[in-house]
Amino acid sequence: MYLTLDDINKLDYLYKINLINSVSGFKSANLIATKSKENIANVAVFSSVVHYGSNPPILGFVLRPSTVIRNTYDNLKETGYYTINHIHEGILEDAHHTSAKYPSEISEFDKSNLEEEYLDAFQAPYVKGCAVRMGLKYLEEYHIKANDTLLVLGEIVHLYIDDHLIEEDGFVNLSKGKTAAINGLDGYFIPENHTRMTYQRPKKD
Amino acid sequence: MYLTLDDINKLDYLYKINLINSVSGFKSANLIATKSKENIANVAVFSSVVHYGSNPPILGFVLRPSTVIRNTYDNLKETGYYTINHIHEGILEDAHHTSAKYPSEISEFDKSNLEEEYLDAFQAPYVKGCAVRMGLKYLEEYHIKANDTLLVLGEIVHLYIDDHLIEEDGFVNLSKGKTAAINGLDGYFIPENHTRMTYQRPKKD
Repeated sequence: MYLTLDDINKLDYLYKINLINSVSGFKSANLIATKSKENIANVAVFSSVVHYGSNPPILGFVLRPSTVIRNTYDNLKETGYYTINHIHEGILEDAHHTSAKYPSEISEFDKSNLEEEYLDAFQAPYVKGCAVRMGLKYLEEYHIKANDTLLVLGEIVHLYIDDHLIEEDGFVNLSKGKTAAINGLDGYFIPENHTRMTYQRPKKD
Repeated sequence: MYLTLDDINKLDYLYKINLINSVSGFKSANLIATKSKENIANVAVFSSVVHYGSNPPILGFVLRPSTVIRNTYDNLKETGYYTINHIHEGILEDAHHTSAKYPSEISEFDKSNLEEEYLDAFQAPYVKGCAVRMGLKYLEEYHIKANDTLLVLGEIVHLYIDDHLIEEDGFVNLSKGKTAAINGLDGYFIPENHTRMTYQRPKKD
């Protein structure tokens, strides 16, 4: 299949979002959880969490245009804190259900089997049972002019990882946590076997 | 394992980059290819390509701090064009080798079995044999103050996908292309089986 930008723009809406959401490759599968100042918790699935740096430890994620409801954003801006929790095989359906559009006064924790948990006096809730969980402090945001989305950056201030995932050199083996990867809008994989490569140096002639 | 920000900052360097590169979850595995005005091609592995929007079709990726060599960036700024090509099982080792730091006058295509291919008069080279290949036009960039990285956004102007990956509703089945996902700095998975979920609506009480 070969499409130009014009062809893509003319595609049927659903076909287009399925197609274009798939072409970036596999995506991370995370639940981002927050709590409003009125103590209403919120949890939502995000496939755009990405590594920005290790030193300091910074993750970014992308929010949809400002024209739609963004409870996650409203809460984290109000409080300064949020959590990122890896989605695993055991919670796939509940995690995906958080993509339903609930009004802000309803907590997705009450509408699914996901359980909130509070650790080390952190303001935002963690999702119980996830093998990797992080408490983040909001750092900064960038308004993306090209399509009115928002990039939010935060610093990892608390990090919880199930011990059996961690290898001797710090590598976190995501398959041991049955961690999910996302394909497109709604395809969930549990990747199983991997190859670790070595550090690469230029080849001599 | 529980670590605070202070604990993370004090970790041994290699342990820290292995750990923090793993905690965003699975990452996309792409080769970004460019060609300088002097006609020297460049190709490099990136794990930060992420979907920003479908309408128009926009992808972003993150570049390392401005203190290091960035041939990809220099070329795409100079020409305005680059390609993104999905990494698959057959080219894992060659793709990973492009992480070696070659000077700008050397093409990684000459130092690996990766083959460049030019399609539809597009300025930048594609990687032969990849099931999903995209020609992008540079749109805009954001300098990330928090850690001096750079977010580059581009629009898909040409899209090539092997037909057998595409399902009736536009979903691109990445496993049919033996597409890779990245864990951390150097772990490569070929995810195999998936579940597709349905569109979620709020549950009634």
